[in-house]
Amino acid sequence: MMNSLGMHILVELFECDRDKLDDVPGIEEAMIKAAEASGATVVNTTFHHFSPIGVSGVVVIQESHLAIHTWPEYGFAAVDLFTCGTTVDPWVAYEYLKKALNADYGSTIEMRRGEKRLMKESSLVSDSIVK
Amino acid sequence: MMNSLGMHILVELFECDRDKLDDVPGIEEAMIKAAEASGATVVNTTFHHFSPIGVSGVVVIQESHLAIHTWPEYGFAAVDLFTCGTTVDPWVAYEYLKKALNADYGSTIEMRRGEKRLMKESSLVSDSIVK
Repeated sequence: MMNSLGMHILVELFECDRDKLDDVPGIEEAMIKAAEASGATVVNTTFHHFSPIGVSGVVVIQESHLAIHTWPEYGFAAVDLFTCGTTVDPWVAYEYLKKALNADYGSTIEMRRGEKRLMKESSLVSDSIVK
Repeated sequence: MMNSLGMHILVELFECDRDKLDDVPGIEEAMIKAAEASGATVVNTTFHHFSPIGVSGVVVIQESHLAIHTWPEYGFAAVDLFTCGTTVDPWVAYEYLKKALNADYGSTIEMRRGEKRLMKESSLVSDSIVK
């Protein structure tokens, strides 16, 4: 049983392929495939190109979201892999993206979001506990 | 001068109004207004309702993104405020959302994403540095 509501991996990827970091369709495809490889169900995606360079985008999944922001001029990408439930493995998405962007280095922080053991659960939305 | 490419505030809001946490249009409106109050330019939004309860959504802004996932049964919301540049103040978005969701408690972590002082900058995407 998980003791947190969500799992969040904060990823910093260094020395990526700089051309790939400026390729909006390529980044979007990599993010969708990373989500699918991790076992997530994609709900929606939104990606856009920065001026003059860089890509920003989010894949909303049934189990939370994956986000990426790239700085081709630094060979750098900041990625967030936020999942909930036990069916998705965000580390699979991490491995996929690290390879897809040809990152030479990467740092990660794994955070548990929403510590269940310190929260009061209620089966009803309008429960008297919170009124 | 900022020494990082992005600023990311990870927010956990406790004892929120549980009805508000299940209201998709209400959450979307609050997130958009929080983004605008912080000085961000909204590019796109995507929000959806979980079954049986909960809201998940992202506001993509020109300066990165704001994301939220709610668990009404716990009165809990996990919020991410990721901004870049110097014109947006993510703490304004934080204050707006805390009030909009009637949160009694909140914890935050401020992270600098992409430490510029340890990266090699290149003005060209296909620079020889990375080849």
